[in-house]
Amino acid sequence: MSKLASKVKEREEDFVFLDELFDRLFPICRSITGPGFRESLRILQETIPFEVMSFESGSQVFDWTVPEEWWISSGSLIGPDQKVYADFEQSNISVLNFSEAVDKEMSLEDLQAHLYSIPEHPDAIPYVTSYYKRRWGFCLPHRVRENLPQGKYKVKIVAEHKKGHLNCGHAFLPGKTKKEILLSSYLCHPSLANNELSGPLVLAWLYKQLAQKEDRYFSYRFVINPETIGSLCYLSRFGEQLKLSLETGMVLTCLGGPEETLSYKASRREDSRLDRMIRAFSNDEVLKMRCREFTPLSGSDERQYCSPGFNLPVGHMSRTLYAEYDGYHNSLDTKEFMNIETVLDSAEKIYRILNCYEKMGLYENTSPYGELCLGKRGLYPSTNSHDTWKQSSDKKLDDRKFLNTVLAILNYSDGKHDSVWIAEQMKWSPRELEPAIAVLQEHQVLKRITETCE
Amino acid sequence: MSKLASKVKEREEDFVFLDELFDRLFPICRSITGPGFRESLRILQETIPFEVMSFESGSQVFDWTVPEEWWISSGSLIGPDQKVYADFEQSNISVLNFSEAVDKEMSLEDLQAHLYSIPEHPDAIPYVTSYYKRRWGFCLPHRVRENLPQGKYKVKIVAEHKKGHLNCGHAFLPGKTKKEILLSSYLCHPSLANNELSGPLVLAWLYKQLAQKEDRYFSYRFVINPETIGSLCYLSRFGEQLKLSLETGMVLTCLGGPEETLSYKASRREDSRLDRMIRAFSNDEVLKMRCREFTPLSGSDERQYCSPGFNLPVGHMSRTLYAEYDGYHNSLDTKEFMNIETVLDSAEKIYRILNCYEKMGLYENTSPYGELCLGKRGLYPSTNSHDTWKQSSDKKLDDRKFLNTVLAILNYSDGKHDSVWIAEQMKWSPRELEPAIAVLQEHQVLKRITETCE
Amino acid sequence: MSKLASKVKEREEDFVFLDELFDRLFPICRSITGPGFRESLRILQETIPFEVMSFESGSQVFDWTVPEEWWISSGSLIGPDQKVYADFEQSNISVLNFSEAVDKEMSLEDLQAHLYSIPEHPDAIPYVTSYYKRRWGFCLPHRVRENLPQGKYKVKIVAEHKKGHLNCGHAFLPGKTKKEILLSSYLCHPSLANNELSGPLVLAWLYKQLAQKEDRYFSYRFVINPETIGSLCYLSRFGEQLKLSLETGMVLTCLGGPEETLSYKASRREDSRLDRMIRAFSNDEVLKMRCREFTPLSGSDERQYCSPGFNLPVGHMSRTLYAEYDGYHNSLDTKEFMNIETVLDSAEKIYRILNCYEKMGLYENTSPYGELCLGKRGLYPSTNSHDTWKQSSDKKLDDRKFLNTVLAILNYSDGKHDSVWIAEQMKWSPRELEPAIAVLQEHQVLKRITETCE
Repeated sequence: MSKLASKVKEREEDFVFLDELFDRLFPICRSITGPGFRESLRILQETIPFEVMSFESGSQVFDWTVPEEWWISSGSLIGPDQKVYADFEQSNISVLNFSEAVDKEMSLEDLQAHLYSIPEHPDAIPYVTSYYKRRWGFCLPHRVRENLPQGKYKVKIVAEHKKGHLNCGHAFLPGKTKKEILLSSYLCHPSLANNELSGPLVLAWLYKQLAQKEDRYFSYRFVINPETIGSLCYLSRFGEQLKLSLETGMVLTCLGGPEETLSYKASRREDSRLDRMIRAFSNDEVLKMRCREFTPLSGSDERQYCSPGFNLPVGHMSRTLYAEYDGYHNSLDTKEFMNIETVLDSAEKIYRILNCYEKMGLYENTSPYGELCLGKRGLYPSTNSHDTWKQSSDKKLDDRKFLNTVLAILNYSDGKHDSVWIAEQMKWSPRELEPAIAVLQEHQVLKRITETCE
Repeated sequence: MSKLASKVKEREEDFVFLDELFDRLFPICRSITGPGFRESLRILQETIPFEVMSFESGSQVFDWTVPEEWWISSGSLIGPDQKVYADFEQSNISVLNFSEAVDKEMSLEDLQAHLYSIPEHPDAIPYVTSYYKRRWGFCLPHRVRENLPQGKYKVKIVAEHKKGHLNCGHAFLPGKTKKEILLSSYLCHPSLANNELSGPLVLAWLYKQLAQKEDRYFSYRFVINPETIGSLCYLSRFGEQLKLSLETGMVLTCLGGPEETLSYKASRREDSRLDRMIRAFSNDEVLKMRCREFTPLSGSDERQYCSPGFNLPVGHMSRTLYAEYDGYHNSLDTKEFMNIETVLDSAEKIYRILNCYEKMGLYENTSPYGELCLGKRGLYPSTNSHDTWKQSSDKKLDDRKFLNTVLAILNYSDGKHDSVWIAEQMKWSPRELEPAIAVLQEHQVLKRITETCE
Repeated sequence: MSKLASKVKEREEDFVFLDELFDRLFPICRSITGPGFRESLRILQETIPFEVMSFESGSQVFDWTVPEEWWISSGSLIGPDQKVYADFEQSNISVLNFSEAVDKEMSLEDLQAHLYSIPEHPDAIPYVTSYYKRRWGFCLPHRVRENLPQGKYKVKIVAEHKKGHLNCGHAFLPGKTKKEILLSSYLCHPSLANNELSGPLVLAWLYKQLAQKEDRYFSYRFVINPETIGSLCYLSRFGEQLKLSLETGMVLTCLGGPEETLSYKASRREDSRLDRMIRAFSNDEVLKMRCREFTPLSGSDERQYCSPGFNLPVGHMSRTLYAEYDGYHNSLDTKEFMNIETVLDSAEKIYRILNCYEKMGLYENTSPYGELCLGKRGLYPSTNSHDTWKQSSDKKLDDRKFLNTVLAILNYSDGKHDSVWIAEQMKWSPRELEPAIAVLQEHQVLKRITETCE
């Protein structure tokens, strides 16, 4: 099989892998606690060997209290005409997520306070949660809601909150250094595609790729948890350790929408090496992406990682962002909207980003006095004539850009300017520096400086 | 009486207060020393309990010598036709300020060297001073000067320079902290409105307001002196102390002209908290103003406060600026040009600025690990549904902007970024942060850090 | 003779001096080593008393090896038609510079690999070198090359590489301080005008001027060497010393082309005082010039001075830059293209720059508390009337700009902001500060702070 054919085949397998994983995970009714979350985690464990940890209901986590587990078995809203207007079996977001039990008859008027719909998207069932205040409720299309007949409704939700645990998972891939790259996603939303499953899908694919990669420079930490309360639990146990071991990280979510490029929100530091590298991709045709400044006003788990007590260099990688598409937090967020092909494309791009990041760092020119004699290493043309330059059999010498990267790296690698700085300074994509870094390391004139964690 | 009516009444009283104060001060012939300055100071003392200090004539103040006192009783220029072309009784700026005595007859030709007029404003009497070189002279409209008949003129000025004192005044309003806000103005110009009395008028109104304010955070230092030499005298006695105690400050002058907004010249540091706060008012509809960079080339007493040996964080607050209006330093600078209503408006705006400044500072989120659980404090909606959000009876929850200020303050208040920085970062008016700061302090999750003076 | 006439005469003499020096140096066949370089150096020594140093062939210099000396006596390419297609006697760049000896007959086909020409400039003979790989070759116009007849060619180059030395020269002019300004140029190109002789010509003129200057503040170090390997040799001996003694410096080259202004490439530090001063000349009508950022990708000897191990504050001063004119590195780079008049203009401008630089530095206002009483020193008008101002017999008082420079220098000279910073801050040409600096030093209120080398 040719290399190209093998590549195509591999990609097909990747697609099938993601597609099947999606189909198994989508129907499960997840929440921040309970059996749905655990079942989903078990399925992911087939790919990522997550070690699972538990946090007891009622225990204190920083300023928060771990909620009880939510066990739901059914829920239905039946009209005076015996029609079923909302049914948990049909759509698990029909019942307010984390809803308490209810079993009674009531007038439409009394029912209204327990109904949720979206006037702007009259055919969509909204995804509504009430984790920290006990409520019961049904979510239904606004068009349905508006046409509900007067009369008595039977409302029945069979659900229970019980003492138990909130769960998180993490897995590791060791690298040459102990410094870690955190890849974190969440798994608490029920049947939603872009704003739920795209994250864990990318995480699974990345784990597979990185596990196969032979020469990982950094160690990798994969984390999965229920959003917000889950990352708080995780940080309560590993936050201090992460302050020491973390090189960089990103929260992965909303990675399957139609947006053309990825979209990166910088860490609270705004100038982590990853933040700077991604901005420098403005000079990269393939990895050029939307760059967002850090904001504490909205986001996902990076809001916890970037809280002032931790201030970890963790960004947020997405594509079509929450609140920027019609299907956000409602039943329009489907596999069709999301697109497995795009999820794979996002995953591949993030893998490229990580591969580039592995090469970025602080380097030192070991012969800093004067320019290096590149000619004797075959890295510089032996005459000043353009002819020689062009006639050289060595492809590298034919490539003025390669020579330029060599010159820039040697001049600026003084142990103070990292390779991302050099790319920024020269207005190049960071990826363009990789060949020269490799060649100069081979010639033992460039040394990577192991930076200790701050 | 309704609150609004009471407000209107209060404002009327304020207007009358300023109007009457103006009318009493305007006619007095002031200079940098002498009885006019002292009389004006006594009138101001009825409102501000200035402690008055004296600096002896001839004493050395830094690079300067304190001048003698100037006592003038009359001055007139009588033409060959017996017409009175300049009369101190009619306008005290008709005589060169600080003029020495003279009593003789002379030709028009010889007289010319002692006459001052402004060709560009032929109807205005210029305000001319000669403090550090003994001269005599008359100031008159250029139109009059051009039509002076040939012949002998009688020139008579009854004035005396005598040993005595230069006077300054200061008054204090203590606050919770000993750090002081300096409000400084001058009182050495004779019958000029915008470029003299507007400053002391605003100072008097501010003293009255701040004296009534119950919870002053900062202490206030009110200073009044003759411009330049007066602030030099004041600094010679209190400069070193101000280096330790000064939080911020501003020189108040030219606050009654027709310019629509206030105009602030930054301190020499360019980044004092006040400098930054006022720049951030570019996001404030009411307090948006003209921002000028610091310059050592022109200005008022901030040139002394900001001299390199002191480098105090003192700016300069004005409205229609000297040299930017026809009446600058001449008889067109009248109560009509200046407008008491505008003086009051300036004073009220400065009071708002000070009130906002009192809230600005370095705060610390006392629960910096993870986001705060705002929900349990009633500061976050209990479902993620827009309906709940909008239906909340709590006005604050209805206000996404309020929640945003809460989130930004909690995230950025790490003891390194002050509240002005947060406003700048978020592109908000500093005033928009005040409600959230207050609420978070009530909930004891935000602590003001007492900064020691540098 | 009037001052103007004497000035004109002096300039004529300068022109003749440069013109004659050019004519003597141009015909010599120079290279990085050998008799041509040494002969040229001897001629320059008539003006600049260079101390000559030698580096033995084969010795190691940082990452490089000093090449042998190149001795060439003749070279010719004779066609099957007995026509001489390239002749060292006619043009010393006809033979590949540093060429090895050859003496044989060969077909046109075999010859081609040894020929160099420029298709884009078919009438120009290219200047080609092969220092670090032994080759032989001829350079000829592309039009000639294309019309070479088939048949046997006689190629003969009488040249030798022999053990000997590479030479550099330096000369000194001491100043009030030991801190040095480096003026460096190269002398290794054969018969080329702009990109060779313009540099040494300017160096020679500057030496003459600076030697006559009575009150040199800085010491001057003049360096001449073969490009790249020469500056590496020089740095191997003096680099560590220069780290301590160097105030600033520039490499001088390509100073005679038709470009209207000078063109300055900043040092690697990007913010040396010279870098900043030259940028601030954007406010100077005469010295305004093209400012280029530092780049390690191309340039002259500043690439060695600015290598990371040295990182000396050395920029690069030129006019019509290499690679930006048709004659770059070929026979079109003649005296006619270059123009002696322009070389003189460049030299004069650089002299002005150096004179301005001598005045730039860190100054301290010795009376920093309050503004200085300028009036008692005759530096401030004694009334506030515009008339007085304008009528003043003192020209300085008539000049508001002069007073402004006085005020700015006094306010900002706090030992932290140098005079270039003040010029930048005020958007003035650095040269505009000179009169005020001189006057304030005379009045002993401004003190130059001797900065120790870092």
